[in-house]
Amino acid sequence: MEKLSVIAERLLADLHELRSFGAEGTGVIRPAFSPEDLKSRKWLAERFREAGLRTQTDGVGNVFGWSANEGRSLLLGSHSDTQPEGGWLDGAMGVIYALEVARTLSENDSTRALPIDVVAWSDEEGAYLTSLGSKSFCRKITDEHLANARNAEGQRLTEAIAGAEFSDEPLAHIDLDRCAAYLEAHIEQGPYLEATENKIGVVSAIVGVRDFKIEFFGEQNHAGTTPMSLRRDAVTSMIGFCDRLSTSFEKLAKKSTVWTFGAIEVSPNAPSIVPAHVKLSLQFRDGDEALLDKMELTLSRLIGDMNAQGPVKLTMVRTDDIVSVATMDNGLQESIRKAAEVHAGNRWIDMPSGAGHDAQVLAELVPCGMLFVPSIGGVSHSFVEDTSEEDIVLGCNVFATAAAEILRTLSR
Amino acid sequence: MEKLSVIAERLLADLHELRSFGAEGTGVIRPAFSPEDLKSRKWLAERFREAGLRTQTDGVGNVFGWSANEGRSLLLGSHSDTQPEGGWLDGAMGVIYALEVARTLSENDSTRALPIDVVAWSDEEGAYLTSLGSKSFCRKITDEHLANARNAEGQRLTEAIAGAEFSDEPLAHIDLDRCAAYLEAHIEQGPYLEATENKIGVVSAIVGVRDFKIEFFGEQNHAGTTPMSLRRDAVTSMIGFCDRLSTSFEKLAKKSTVWTFGAIEVSPNAPSIVPAHVKLSLQFRDGDEALLDKMELTLSRLIGDMNAQGPVKLTMVRTDDIVSVATMDNGLQESIRKAAEVHAGNRWIDMPSGAGHDAQVLAELVPCGMLFVPSIGGVSHSFVEDTSEEDIVLGCNVFATAAAEILRTLSR
Repeated sequence: MEKLSVIAERLLADLHELRSFGAEGTGVIRPAFSPEDLKSRKWLAERFREAGLRTQTDGVGNVFGWSANEGRSLLLGSHSDTQPEGGWLDGAMGVIYALEVARTLSENDSTRALPIDVVAWSDEEGAYLTSLGSKSFCRKITDEHLANARNAEGQRLTEAIAGAEFSDEPLAHIDLDRCAAYLEAHIEQGPYLEATENKIGVVSAIVGVRDFKIEFFGEQNHAGTTPMSLRRDAVTSMIGFCDRLSTSFEKLAKKSTVWTFGAIEVSPNAPSIVPAHVKLSLQFRDGDEALLDKMELTLSRLIGDMNAQGPVKLTMVRTDDIVSVATMDNGLQESIRKAAEVHAGNRWIDMPSGAGHDAQVLAELVPCGMLFVPSIGGVSHSFVEDTSEEDIVLGCNVFATAAAEILRTLSR
Repeated sequence: MEKLSVIAERLLADLHELRSFGAEGTGVIRPAFSPEDLKSRKWLAERFREAGLRTQTDGVGNVFGWSANEGRSLLLGSHSDTQPEGGWLDGAMGVIYALEVARTLSENDSTRALPIDVVAWSDEEGAYLTSLGSKSFCRKITDEHLANARNAEGQRLTEAIAGAEFSDEPLAHIDLDRCAAYLEAHIEQGPYLEATENKIGVVSAIVGVRDFKIEFFGEQNHAGTTPMSLRRDAVTSMIGFCDRLSTSFEKLAKKSTVWTFGAIEVSPNAPSIVPAHVKLSLQFRDGDEALLDKMELTLSRLIGDMNAQGPVKLTMVRTDDIVSVATMDNGLQESIRKAAEVHAGNRWIDMPSGAGHDAQVLAELVPCGMLFVPSIGGVSHSFVEDTSEEDIVLGCNVFATAAAEILRTLSR
């Protein structure tokens, strides 16, 4: 495997220039279709052009840089939009990695002929529609989806698009004859790499997510005059439920399985009143679809048991579409591992991605791979989000080396 | 024991006439110092006068009817104010019982000479200051308390009093040479009598109450990217705390011990975020002060254990003054039991009062007794609150019989 090195100063300079669009202290405010987002997309297209790529901005704001090299290509990229109060690296780093890798490969005799396409996806963070750009590219969005999408202020996506320069451009769609695979680099957004002292995460799968609302219907009573034996206390039932479910989940769980009781609402929520009603959110994630099925079965059995037992009535509803597990391609994983070994020795680790990414959308159509670099303190979606320059550069070197290796394998 | 009977029609007629002050559907809106409350107090004073009692309304609105009979007296009464949306019997029933018993005893040769004083306490429900009337009567209120008390709308108690006819009247205070004991009848406000098919509750004690706020300080994290082992999840800690505390309390508890987790606030309270912070209310009540001490010790030890264990930090603060147990006098309990046996056979039961009453205030100075009648469905502090006419009349007969017996015992 050829060990490639990117130009660190150029990589970091471009990252900082992209950061300047919407910079706010150490953070960035650049949600999709904001003036800063639209400006940054023009700037990105110009960078892609300078790198020798044919640029295209499509009708939802995806910015592509197409290589003139022939053959089946590797698509590299991530998203350049941010959360309403976002960090400077989330998404942006993966876009600039793609650009820098395209430049590095084009400057190197041994890799000059490799077809690298790059992309900056639109609205991954879902200001209007989560993973809008990659879903549109993969034909997973209907005209109805586009027509109904609105941001938190109620503005329609169609209006936001109408105000952009690219509003009359056609939508770009994936060409499976051209695109052999998709590779995305991203900050980890969690504490795992830091905690295990690794530099590179080789993503095995993007986890599936299941979201539920559990409701507990009891009876409101005076907390002084109602004996324990005559109560139908919604909070007590909720405590028992969470305790029993966690005990069951602990037995099923792998190291990477997570579940969260993130939100609780009690009614009437007063110290002297036996609670009548509780709404509880439950979300669980894992990279193994069969395990998620087992967890959901355990959940619905517990609800059945508790309803049979009484005295509080439980209901459960799904609060979001099921997000399926997106398994990363074994061959691509292996190439990233090898490249990590070359640059970082044994300081890499296989891990699932607990957060969603555009690669999840692409993975239904083409082999995908993802690479993570450490997040300081595990923090993201925050102005505090950061990664050391050393880790940023190391990650890009691994990404370049892996990309070249993958393309060589493809052409064999 | 002489079996006395009140005049059922007169009792019910007066109860319904008192109900008319502030009537709203089946309920009553007559909070302390409202125009309806002030009108009803004038009406009560007139009823007391008609019953041959010397009437006095004191400077906080307590309405007394003093017997001309000599000797150490029995004070009978309850409060005539209601909750902002109250029932027709809570408090009012005990006041009309007192009036009807005074009338019945004065009409009966064998009981005519017994000194029965009656009272309608002011603001037991705490529109301005909980148990204002009985606390003032027992000298448990300072001028500062009076000056600082305000209602939910911010109006000062002193202004409310200034607007009343009795504003220039002196405060009445207990005369321990006169008052030998205090007896109060009340609706149960709970489901225990109904559930056990009893007609009379003989109150053993008014329970003590301890109120706490427990806080859990964890760390906010992404619910997808933060492994379970690296979380400091405030909700998970709260679940474990409630579960462990309830298990310990179950071992200590008597049948009448109650504890309630009535209010929970989670922050940031979102399905995809590991919760950083929880506020939990805990209240427990029992008629045994030593048991309450044990429960509080168990609570503070658990908090210590969980803080030693980590990873979430717990704090606890008392959110209200300790309400001490008010034990009812054994002799008075015995007289009520005997009277209940005479009128209701074995359909009476000893029980604590889980709710607070004016008798709690009086009990620090004089022997006190309380009698409960069933609440339909255990409901109170609600327009739906009710008790069957049969149970109302039966309760008053027991109350009259017990009062006469107690006064005869006093004079022996």
